[in-house]
Amino acid sequence: MSTIEADVPPMTRTLGAFVATHPSRGWDATVEREAHRTFLNWLGCAIGASRHASVEAALAAARDLAPSAQASVLGRADRLDMASAALVNGISSHTFDFDDTHLKTIIHPAAPVASAALALAEHRGAGGRELIDALVLGVDVACRVGNAVYPDHYDRGWHITGSTGMLGAAAACARVLCLDAEQATMALGIAASQPAGLREQFGSMTKALHPGAAARAGLTAALLARHGYTASSRALEAKHGLLQTFSTKVDWRELTDALGARFEISFNSYKPFACGVVIHPCIDGCVQLRNAHGLQAEEIERIFLKVHPLVLALTGKTSPRDGLEGKFSVYHACAAAIVFGQAGESEFSDALVARPDLVALRQRVSAVADAAIGKEAADVTILCRDGRQLHVFVAHAIGSLERPLADADLQRKFHGLVDPVLGRERADALIECCSSLAACEDLRRVTALACPTPEPSARLRGEAT
Amino acid sequence: MSTIEADVPPMTRTLGAFVATHPSRGWDATVEREAHRTFLNWLGCAIGASRHASVEAALAAARDLAPSAQASVLGRADRLDMASAALVNGISSHTFDFDDTHLKTIIHPAAPVASAALALAEHRGAGGRELIDALVLGVDVACRVGNAVYPDHYDRGWHITGSTGMLGAAAACARVLCLDAEQATMALGIAASQPAGLREQFGSMTKALHPGAAARAGLTAALLARHGYTASSRALEAKHGLLQTFSTKVDWRELTDALGARFEISFNSYKPFACGVVIHPCIDGCVQLRNAHGLQAEEIERIFLKVHPLVLALTGKTSPRDGLEGKFSVYHACAAAIVFGQAGESEFSDALVARPDLVALRQRVSAVADAAIGKEAADVTILCRDGRQLHVFVAHAIGSLERPLADADLQRKFHGLVDPVLGRERADALIECCSSLAACEDLRRVTALACPTPEPSARLRGEAT
Repeated sequence: MSTIEADVPPMTRTLGAFVATHPSRGWDATVEREAHRTFLNWLGCAIGASRHASVEAALAAARDLAPSAQASVLGRADRLDMASAALVNGISSHTFDFDDTHLKTIIHPAAPVASAALALAEHRGAGGRELIDALVLGVDVACRVGNAVYPDHYDRGWHITGSTGMLGAAAACARVLCLDAEQATMALGIAASQPAGLREQFGSMTKALHPGAAARAGLTAALLARHGYTASSRALEAKHGLLQTFSTKVDWRELTDALGARFEISFNSYKPFACGVVIHPCIDGCVQLRNAHGLQAEEIERIFLKVHPLVLALTGKTSPRDGLEGKFSVYHACAAAIVFGQAGESEFSDALVARPDLVALRQRVSAVADAAIGKEAADVTILCRDGRQLHVFVAHAIGSLERPLADADLQRKFHGLVDPVLGRERADALIECCSSLAACEDLRRVTALACPTPEPSARLRGEAT
Repeated sequence: MSTIEADVPPMTRTLGAFVATHPSRGWDATVEREAHRTFLNWLGCAIGASRHASVEAALAAARDLAPSAQASVLGRADRLDMASAALVNGISSHTFDFDDTHLKTIIHPAAPVASAALALAEHRGAGGRELIDALVLGVDVACRVGNAVYPDHYDRGWHITGSTGMLGAAAACARVLCLDAEQATMALGIAASQPAGLREQFGSMTKALHPGAAARAGLTAALLARHGYTASSRALEAKHGLLQTFSTKVDWRELTDALGARFEISFNSYKPFACGVVIHPCIDGCVQLRNAHGLQAEEIERIFLKVHPLVLALTGKTSPRDGLEGKFSVYHACAAAIVFGQAGESEFSDALVARPDLVALRQRVSAVADAAIGKEAADVTILCRDGRQLHVFVAHAIGSLERPLADADLQRKFHGLVDPVLGRERADALIECCSSLAACEDLRRVTALACPTPEPSARLRGEAT
């Protein structure tokens, strides 16, 4: 790390030029594929959560601004101005905590980046190629900044998804707007002043606001830059710039090493379970033992977990009071894994968290922090009432880079999220459309499929103050 | 300071309840008067800068969102949705660096707070009483947070106006919306995740974006809270809450000591001169001698200044090349003070900095650093061609807390800013209206006066994408 400004080469400008000038599809097929998977996974999360109370509240607040109908709210008939649509889709796609994860930094990159890029691209009538390019480059910028400051920045209290996401959103929108290198630098600079996200908000709706606010800030920053608004061209790297202000450690090489050769979206992953990745190895272990031995809850005397200390620090709630708190309870998550063999959004409903059999089972889960267990691992032992002792050591959970979700799993997840909102037929059409998204000539085909046909009253509601 | 969360009483909630429940006009006449002065000063700054390139760019970006016409852009015929109006007025009022200063924290509180409160209050057809109440309480919240973290937070790289201003804006808007204590707590919590401001941006347009982004974030936070959006009720004080995340020092007592008894707006100050406060004592001394003796530039042989060393370090440019550099030249500032008897925005124009009589006079100014002279003081001696030697020692410059700007001076400053935009007659009407603002039944009277009558094409422009 260096905190001497003079030592640091011009990073904001380098990234600005990269975003503006890197050739379309200037990467290999694996990056291209991961971009498509990232988009499909994000779309499913946004549609799936589109009726959640946080989305209703955010939409009601956006309607107070009597927005014009520029862009779609995914999964809904409502349309909002681009900035508000970026905000609301950023919220909805992160609401279930079920979106993607750049594991090295635990950034959820699609929520800020795709939310901003799609709202802007839809309004401009852009095509899938432009969106995929914007997504790859935007995710790259956000995650590179994350690489440079993680974990110190996160340890300090920042929710890194929203505090780097505005840069990814600005980069993606700069690309969609075809800004030149100087303008893209300004867009990154303007966005740099607007990190959004405190870890203290975990457990409240404001956690999902972070990527939403980042999406709105990044989109607005790109629009401002396009009209000549200026920022420091050293907003990231200067002594009083973003990175040294919000982190105590900065590894400068992460920002620009192998820029245009290594793409961070290659390291994106998709959650099989609707909660923080930190408890995925525990859930995976429980599901494995359940399925291997046909276990029922009432057979179980006790579940013993040995976990990385972070698991208890982040998800140690022994008595979660509602679905949201259930996501921060390794005890509930493991109980649900045993009872249902999965841990999707519906396994974290208020009702299930209060259901007597699940409460009884979660009280039989003990977890011990063990610094010898890696963050990506868990040691799960189940003691059965008949005396059997079942054990599995999960070195890497499903959904990790070592055990990535297969396309079929991703599509199953998409159906689980989208079918209840739009029906299976539309979900199939969306999967089909997204599988060749880069070839899609007009993204409004995608957004039309992703939203129910508007009721006649929708516009009126949208215009009420 | 304490960083142990358990030690810290519930501050977000205490401030939320304070904002929601403190009685209207629950303060003495001096606080009430300062609120009126704060508003007038802010309004002048916003109108004065309303044609600046940064405002044009921000307005163009906001127009891309095809905003509805809910609230006024001060000094202009344009109307924008409330959130965009808060953003643009926040930018314009801080653009000339001529707005108010809470000297203990160097927060410029009106730009974020008044910009958000007026946009919201105007759209709701609220009256002056509600606005003044919102302004007092909003400024109190922002400056109390500033007191708790200054100077460490600022030293770390944050532009404190935008990184505390979103809380002030949220508090003010919670008040305008008549949110209850719980909702106001949520509004503060939502806003806490969105600090905006890096010192690296000083010298670019993004410096003024900070209060604008803070105004927009605070207003949006209050709207979200009104519709049931939730945040941590310990978003300020928790270990991973705002204060411990963005500052290394926190003096918790500053947040709630004498809450409702001591109001930070009492300590607000207004710049008489459109440049850094460090040269205000010199300008003040020159203006005093000029007025007392009816001095003309050609009568002056030499001006001798004894100043604190910082004056020459910061403003020692002997040959400024343009208006901006003129603000960093104690020589030009004193020459302008003699010639015009003031040093407002127009005395720092490119043209005046190059005008031969001013160049000739500034070359007859000598300044000597003297560590015995305090930062707030200056020793000014003028040697006249007729042999007279005139002297004044300025212990505290006009505009300081010790010698606050008289109402007449504040009105003169207002005219200097507003007359070129709206004409003297409108400026007089605005001063009249603002002098009894608390009694104004509908703020749309104020905003109508503060904006030129719309041209027929204005709405069309506003709706273009």
